[in-house]
Amino acid sequence: MTGPSAGRSSENETLVVKLGGSVVTEKTERETVDVDALADAARALAAFDGSLVVVHGGGSFGHHHAAEHGVSTDEGTGNAGDALAIHGAMVELNRVVVDALQDEDVPALPVHPLSAASRDSDGDLSLPTAQITGMLDEGFVPVLHGDGVVHAGEGVTVLSGDELVVELAPAVGATRVGVCSTVPGVLDGEDAVVDRIGSFDEVADVLGASDATDVTGGMAGKVRALLELGVPAQIFAPDALDAFVAGESPGTTIETR
Amino acid sequence: MTGPSAGRSSENETLVVKLGGSVVTEKTERETVDVDALADAARALAAFDGSLVVVHGGGSFGHHHAAEHGVSTDEGTGNAGDALAIHGAMVELNRVVVDALQDEDVPALPVHPLSAASRDSDGDLSLPTAQITGMLDEGFVPVLHGDGVVHAGEGVTVLSGDELVVELAPAVGATRVGVCSTVPGVLDGEDAVVDRIGSFDEVADVLGASDATDVTGGMAGKVRALLELGVPAQIFAPDALDAFVAGESPGTTIETR
Repeated sequence: MTGPSAGRSSENETLVVKLGGSVVTEKTERETVDVDALADAARALAAFDGSLVVVHGGGSFGHHHAAEHGVSTDEGTGNAGDALAIHGAMVELNRVVVDALQDEDVPALPVHPLSAASRDSDGDLSLPTAQITGMLDEGFVPVLHGDGVVHAGEGVTVLSGDELVVELAPAVGATRVGVCSTVPGVLDGEDAVVDRIGSFDEVADVLGASDATDVTGGMAGKVRALLELGVPAQIFAPDALDAFVAGESPGTTIETR
Repeated sequence: MTGPSAGRSSENETLVVKLGGSVVTEKTERETVDVDALADAARALAAFDGSLVVVHGGGSFGHHHAAEHGVSTDEGTGNAGDALAIHGAMVELNRVVVDALQDEDVPALPVHPLSAASRDSDGDLSLPTAQITGMLDEGFVPVLHGDGVVHAGEGVTVLSGDELVVELAPAVGATRVGVCSTVPGVLDGEDAVVDRIGSFDEVADVLGASDATDVTGGMAGKVRALLELGVPAQIFAPDALDAFVAGESPGTTIETR
């Protein structure tokens, strides 16, 4: 499998790619996969020949259930039925994503975060990753997803795809991180894509500085978290996934200078 | 929830209970749940009011797929499709088991071993358990199952329910372990149930000593592994699950003297 040439080989690269929930699902129609967009994304990822971890969001699968039961990253549920409703919908979506990747000969295997991760009473996440690096070493592509997570004192809270990306990138030694969303990048005051962000101060005025700890969707929280990674992260739209995989720098590049 | 009185409270107990694959499925009919037997087991477990971990086997869900693809605890597959066939069937069965438990008001949550565990190149298993003890602390009942597991140098091998029981019991501080199978216990030379086994030598002649490392089904391997636990383990048939939960000692008790 080789992608469009970009003057570099991807063999020694390790990518963590987030497919936003709004990319792979019809976000306005409950529990509906965007089959064409998912197939396109799978084809783009199949062109990569290094190590790959995929994370996808919940879109119209996870968010309805979480909202209905009042569950967020810090407000939990002690009701096993509610937790299972959120988790079950995400497992269902994950299976569709894994199948779409396998259809394109990507050796994808599911990793369900509820089965592995936990939060302490401060909300700090622990995600063991030996199973994930083990899968990479064996040539598989682990596919994680936003999910529920057991949380000391809260029952089960939400573990977002964005949070997983930030946790996984250093754990797997990612060389680049891609966040594929429905926006073409971080937008400036005139809705133009910001090419490069080297510090939060550069975009604080357009993003707002209020949601410093929010990594569940807010762009400000996303940018702050990606700036901490120590490797370049790109935010881009689905039509740029090919270019990202090929080693180009579409959308907004986020890397601390 | 209170079980039949046995002169002791279960509130401070932690049980690990294995439901054999042949108990919860029709082992001869491919991917068929034994709905009545599963409901009976769920009702029996609902009577327990301490901490509970449930592990179930594969029965007619996992074994066919593993056998078809030539996958065992030490022979693996590097094919993601084959690994997903085994895992997917077990996830499906697990959902049915979790739903049956929730139907009886047991706050069951799934824990899929492929998402958490890994084997090194010697086949030694690592199973992080903070998510499992976290679930117990929050009042949930984690439900694990025989599954695939990433295995260094082998791709994905089988992780059996019996192996999970032996791994989990010390990790969760189990006070008793129950192995609910279709046999009423360990049988002696005249097919009578052995009441108590305190060392392997006592039963080596009837069990055979050849399969010392087999924890995937052979009774000799099961007995050897359970003798190592340091807490009493019982092997019994489904009709004795009530009694086990109530603190009685049905079937064969295995405990090193």
